[in-house]
Amino acid sequence: MRTREERSSTCIQEEDLLLKHYIWDIWFLLCLPSIECFCRYLQDAFKVPLVIQLTDDEKCMWKNLSVEESQRLARENAKDIIACGFDISKTFIFSDFDYVGGAFYKNMVKVAKCVTYNKVVGIFGFTGEDHIGKVSFPPVQAVPSFPSSFPHLFSGKDDLRCLIPCAIDQDPYFRMTRDVAPRLGYHKPALIESSFFPALQGETGKMSASDPNSAIYVTDSAKDIKNKINKYAFSGGQDSIEKHRLYGANLEVDIPIKYLNFFLDDDAELERITKEYGAGRMLTGEVKQRLIQVLTEMVERHRRARAAVTDEMVDAFMAVRPLPNMFD
Amino acid sequence: MRTREERSSTCIQEEDLLLKHYIWDIWFLLCLPSIECFCRYLQDAFKVPLVIQLTDDEKCMWKNLSVEESQRLARENAKDIIACGFDISKTFIFSDFDYVGGAFYKNMVKVAKCVTYNKVVGIFGFTGEDHIGKVSFPPVQAVPSFPSSFPHLFSGKDDLRCLIPCAIDQDPYFRMTRDVAPRLGYHKPALIESSFFPALQGETGKMSASDPNSAIYVTDSAKDIKNKINKYAFSGGQDSIEKHRLYGANLEVDIPIKYLNFFLDDDAELERITKEYGAGRMLTGEVKQRLIQVLTEMVERHRRARAAVTDEMVDAFMAVRPLPNMFD
Repeated sequence: MRTREERSSTCIQEEDLLLKHYIWDIWFLLCLPSIECFCRYLQDAFKVPLVIQLTDDEKCMWKNLSVEESQRLARENAKDIIACGFDISKTFIFSDFDYVGGAFYKNMVKVAKCVTYNKVVGIFGFTGEDHIGKVSFPPVQAVPSFPSSFPHLFSGKDDLRCLIPCAIDQDPYFRMTRDVAPRLGYHKPALIESSFFPALQGETGKMSASDPNSAIYVTDSAKDIKNKINKYAFSGGQDSIEKHRLYGANLEVDIPIKYLNFFLDDDAELERITKEYGAGRMLTGEVKQRLIQVLTEMVERHRRARAAVTDEMVDAFMAVRPLPNMFD
Repeated sequence: MRTREERSSTCIQEEDLLLKHYIWDIWFLLCLPSIECFCRYLQDAFKVPLVIQLTDDEKCMWKNLSVEESQRLARENAKDIIACGFDISKTFIFSDFDYVGGAFYKNMVKVAKCVTYNKVVGIFGFTGEDHIGKVSFPPVQAVPSFPSSFPHLFSGKDDLRCLIPCAIDQDPYFRMTRDVAPRLGYHKPALIESSFFPALQGETGKMSASDPNSAIYVTDSAKDIKNKINKYAFSGGQDSIEKHRLYGANLEVDIPIKYLNFFLDDDAELERITKEYGAGRMLTGEVKQRLIQVLTEMVERHRRARAAVTDEMVDAFMAVRPLPNMFD
C-alpha cells in the first residue's frame, strides 16, 4: 500500500532501457518488507529472482518480543507479502531465525570483521547501554546483498549483482554494506529508496504504530477507513465553502490528494480531480469520498488475496530450495 | 597433554561419590579443546554425553584467518581430539561455522539481548576500534551450555545441567553465561577449571605459539623433544655438582619435575625421583632423561592414534545426529 505499482511502472518505463540494460538477467532483488508492490512490479517487468528477508531476530531484539512471537509475526508478514502476487518460481522468502547459518553465517562473520564498534556507533547511534544483539545485527541485514549467502539459489553465480528496493530508513545498513563489499571481493549492492508515505495527519506527522489513526491498515474495515479518512486525513481545503470556491484547495498540504496520487489508477481522473479541487470547484468531502472508495476496494482486494494464502503456500515460498527457472 | 588423566582420576575418585551424585545421568559435558584428556576421563567415569565446540569463527576473527583456513584447522583439531579416544556414541563435535543456526542461533539472540556493550567491555576489555565480530562472539561461546541449543541431542531434556571442564582463561565467557542463564529460565553451567601448564622456560614464562621452544607439541619429533627439554626446560638444580649434592634441587621452580608430575604414570616412581632430586642425589640430566622418555612415548602414542583417525571418522563425530545411547 506504500506505493502505486502502476504509477511506479509509468515512471520506470521511461528509464526502462537503462534499467533493463543493468537488470537483465545479471541481477537479483533483495526486498525488505514495506515495499512489496514495487518489488513485484520489478520482478514482473524484469523477470529476476527476488529474495525477501524477514528480520524476525531484529524484531525480537528491538521490540523485546519473544523468539516465538517474532517468528509468528514473520509468518503473518509473509502472508501479506505473498498476497501481493509474487511468482513462487522466482521468489525465496526467509526469516533470519530459520535461515541464519552456513554460508550466510560465514558472510556475517566476514562482514563483522570489517566493521569496528566505533563505526556502527557512528552509523546507528548505539550507546554502551544497548545490548550486544543490536551491535551484532547489522551484518545480518547486510549479507543477503551477496549471492554467496544463498548457495541453493546462486551457487557459482558470485558475480550476480543485487538491487535493493527499500524504504529510506534502511539506507544506513546498506551504506555500511557498500563500504564493506569491495574489501570482501563482492559487488556493492545497488539501492532504489522510497520516501515515507505521509501520515493521515499531514506531511509533518509520522505514521506510528502507537497511533492507529495515523495510517490506513490492510486490516482496517470499510467503516474504519471511512472514519479515518473523514476524521483524520488532513485537508488543504478552505475554512468555508465560499472561501474554497474562491481560493481552491492547497494541494501542497492536502493528504487526500496525495493518497490519491499514490493509489488512483486512472491518470486522467487523477488529473481532473487535482484540477477541479485546486480550482475550488470540487470540495474536500468529494475528494475524500473518492479516496475512501479507492482504499476500500484496494484493502478489500488485499484481504481476499491474503485469505487465499494458506500455511502450505507460506511453507512453499520459505522452503530452502533451488529455483531453476528464476531467470526465465 | 595438559593434564595426566590417570592422576586426575586419582584426585577425582576421592570426590567421586559427590560428583557422581551430581553428574549421574543428569549432566552433559561441554568441552573446549585443550582439556580433552580430562574430559575423556570424565566421560569414561560418568558415562555422560559430551559436546565439543570448535570455535573456528573465533579463530577466523581473532587470528585474522580466512573462513576456509579456520575450517581446515578445526578439522585438524578434531583429529587430535578424536585421537584421545572419545566414545562416538556419546560425543558430538561441532564447528561454529557448520553448526550456528536454528535453535543455537535463537539462543545466541536470547543471550545477546541480556548483555550490554558496557558489560562485555568490562568482561573482555574490548575497545571501540575492535571489530563487531568480537563483540558478537561471547553469545556463540555461551549457548552450548544450554541443552536447547542441541535439539538433535537433548530435545525435551531442558532440565539437563552442563559441566564445562576448561582452561581458566575461558572463565569470563562462562561467568557471563552463568549471569545470563537464570534470566532465560536456563540452568547455570558448572565449571571445572584447569590452570595453565607452565612454559619450558619456567613458571613465569608463557607458552606461546610465537615461540616454538616454549612448549612440547604433539607434532614434535623425538629429536625435537630431546633438544627442547635438554636445552630449554628450566632447571631447579644447582650451578655445580658439588653444590647440587650439598643443597639439592629447588623443586619449586624446576620444570622437569613439574612436567613429570603431570605426565609420569607411576606414583611411586614420581615420589622417588622427587625425593632423590630434592636431596641432590639425582642430577638434572637424569630427571630430564626420564622426562624425555615419558614425553616421547606419549607423543608417539598420540601420533599413532591420530594417524588412525580418518576423514570419515571426523565426519561421523561431527554429524548432526541423535545419540540414543548417550546416557547408557
